[in-house]
Amino acid sequence: MDSVEMKFSKLGVENAPGQEVRQKNNKVEMQVDKIPGIPVDFSHGDVDAFEPIPGTLDQFIEGVQIGSKQAYTEYRGNKKIREETAEKLANFTSTKIDADKNLIITPGTQGALFLAMGASLSRNDKVAIVKPDYFANRKLVEFFDGEVIPIQMDYLRSTSEAGVDLTQLEASFKAGVKLFLFSNPNNPTGVVYSQNEIREIAKLAQQYEVKVIVDELYARLVFEGQYYTHISAQKILDPENLITIMGPSKTESLSGYRLGVAFGSSKIIDRMEKLQAIVSLRASGYSQVVLNSWFNEPDGWMVKRIEQHQAIRDDLIRKLLSIKGIQVRATEAGSYLFPKLPELTVTLEEFVKVLRNQANVIVTPGTEFGPQFTDSFRINFSQNHKAAAAAIDRINKAVEAYRK
Amino acid sequence: MDSVEMKFSKLGVENAPGQEVRQKNNKVEMQVDKIPGIPVDFSHGDVDAFEPIPGTLDQFIEGVQIGSKQAYTEYRGNKKIREETAEKLANFTSTKIDADKNLIITPGTQGALFLAMGASLSRNDKVAIVKPDYFANRKLVEFFDGEVIPIQMDYLRSTSEAGVDLTQLEASFKAGVKLFLFSNPNNPTGVVYSQNEIREIAKLAQQYEVKVIVDELYARLVFEGQYYTHISAQKILDPENLITIMGPSKTESLSGYRLGVAFGSSKIIDRMEKLQAIVSLRASGYSQVVLNSWFNEPDGWMVKRIEQHQAIRDDLIRKLLSIKGIQVRATEAGSYLFPKLPELTVTLEEFVKVLRNQANVIVTPGTEFGPQFTDSFRINFSQNHKAAAAAIDRINKAVEAYRK
Repeated sequence: MDSVEMKFSKLGVENAPGQEVRQKNNKVEMQVDKIPGIPVDFSHGDVDAFEPIPGTLDQFIEGVQIGSKQAYTEYRGNKKIREETAEKLANFTSTKIDADKNLIITPGTQGALFLAMGASLSRNDKVAIVKPDYFANRKLVEFFDGEVIPIQMDYLRSTSEAGVDLTQLEASFKAGVKLFLFSNPNNPTGVVYSQNEIREIAKLAQQYEVKVIVDELYARLVFEGQYYTHISAQKILDPENLITIMGPSKTESLSGYRLGVAFGSSKIIDRMEKLQAIVSLRASGYSQVVLNSWFNEPDGWMVKRIEQHQAIRDDLIRKLLSIKGIQVRATEAGSYLFPKLPELTVTLEEFVKVLRNQANVIVTPGTEFGPQFTDSFRINFSQNHKAAAAAIDRINKAVEAYRK
Repeated sequence: MDSVEMKFSKLGVENAPGQEVRQKNNKVEMQVDKIPGIPVDFSHGDVDAFEPIPGTLDQFIEGVQIGSKQAYTEYRGNKKIREETAEKLANFTSTKIDADKNLIITPGTQGALFLAMGASLSRNDKVAIVKPDYFANRKLVEFFDGEVIPIQMDYLRSTSEAGVDLTQLEASFKAGVKLFLFSNPNNPTGVVYSQNEIREIAKLAQQYEVKVIVDELYARLVFEGQYYTHISAQKILDPENLITIMGPSKTESLSGYRLGVAFGSSKIIDRMEKLQAIVSLRASGYSQVVLNSWFNEPDGWMVKRIEQHQAIRDDLIRKLLSIKGIQVRATEAGSYLFPKLPELTVTLEEFVKVLRNQANVIVTPGTEFGPQFTDSFRINFSQNHKAAAAAIDRINKAVEAYRK
């Protein structure tokens, strides 16, 4: 096996959201008859249930009408759109952002993550990664020949903090970690880091000169009573060692346009642009115009969106907790839940297949977020409310059929 | 300097097409007054002069209307769109393409190139790269820690073949080259490889077990009297060692939608999808629908497009050859010209700045395509015909002002 073959053998996508169609259909003994119901794909949000920001298609069309100038923007994105976006994000995060130096528009938040990692990592660098966290984080470190140093997060311990192990984090920094990559709100658990946790992370990173990449994709969908802390606003960490990533793909349902943004360190942003030049040139020029609608939603639109998601969350949490032995922490921001199952007679992989084949429910196995999560699964509850609730009832039935 | 810093120091983008706005304005002594005229940006095609395939925006809108299913396709692209695209490309290239195994939709042809290279290259692999060839080719090899083995192409020698040095190519294969990456038609010269050259390349690659990635981006814009040979149709090279890249960004003016396609080796395509999952997830789901218009243009549309480009080419060639000492080979396919300048009193870098500042003409310096091309520049003549012709007159004046 040559090194590229070895590298790719670790980069599976079969269990990633939306990829289920590519799975080989290994046999699982089905102990339940089909449980009928409207199919629900919890692996990603449903943009038919929660539609894109009004007017976004019109802005794309405007982009097409502008023509050549909009089709061929600078690799880091159209200057005027960068300026407007920088101003909106500076307001939202209480951070100083120079549109010319500190911001790049990317093809989706995934694009921003890839570029930020590629622009920061040297071969063999140690990278601290929270367990659980977004499944691509580990894969990115492996692709760039870094070494993953896992940091445990005991998210079921408390509801006043995320539960990240700061002692372990400091030990890893002491042991030579170069970069800390994490999502806040956390994907897959939906928990938000406390202000104290964020400030401690910033202090440690500053003390040990560790770069930080924070994925704040879901930072706008914060539920009632929850306080959210932007690490970029703390003024603790050298801004040249920090990249923040956001985008309108989730809460705003604009994933189909492939738009993301990274802001922070001018040095890393410069490199990200150089990398973008050979990765995909730029985010779709026409799509870039759609960013004008971001943070410019109609009055009350975002408030309503948050309320609707909160109502679904409450309903699903209630239903999940009624299943004996299931543990779950209520989402504080974003639209993920990460329930922990009671002991079953089948493996998680098999149970996920049962849900898909017998119950018309697609969930993402916990093992995508860390190898030890063999008893958890992630659901994205940005779905039709009724259909999502009914799908949890079907999960309930499947759990009972396979309970040990 | 750590290794990531070193790597990025080699990845300049300041002279890349569309990036001129980011250049520092070092002083060049201006020996000519401003030469007035309509600005022409020869660094890329003008999609205002040559508009996208009719109906493409409607197809994008159709994609938005399909909604969630289209926003979240498989990473390799929507199945039905892949099937239709595979059939069209199979017909065009006389190649067998299984839509499920042998094809991936990517964010632009650049995306396909990046994924194909990332999925094929191990660290320290030797990669044969033609001089001159597309500027990203060298950068991709460097980014993936490969070693560039330059292969000379004497494109001014003859008009019956591209002029690639097959002896040098074989020697490089013998010396352990793992991969040969080249564009046909060649970017920046617009020359087409002869059938004999293509078959020899295929034979050598087969003999020495070298993988081949061929960028056929401009393979549809072939001018009168020119024969074009798809390497995939020759049945000489093991199809599992070949990737062909195409896309509708250039001839079809769809660059703003960011769409590309790679087809060939199922093993490499599988890896490309795994890589796409961490690079940008997928080509914009809505944009993917636009591929339906590709190879489905209205009757006569492509014929007319080729005729119009050929008329511009003829006019520009005539004007360029009237400048004493300029050497240029007429484009055989695509919309690039790569004129070689007579000796000037300024460097190429300075001359390119003079053209931009004094003559309102943007060209790409030859050094982007190989360090030895300090006397050549590339123009993309997919422009308004009159404006392009007038711009060549201004280049003529600038050459006279700086002639040695």
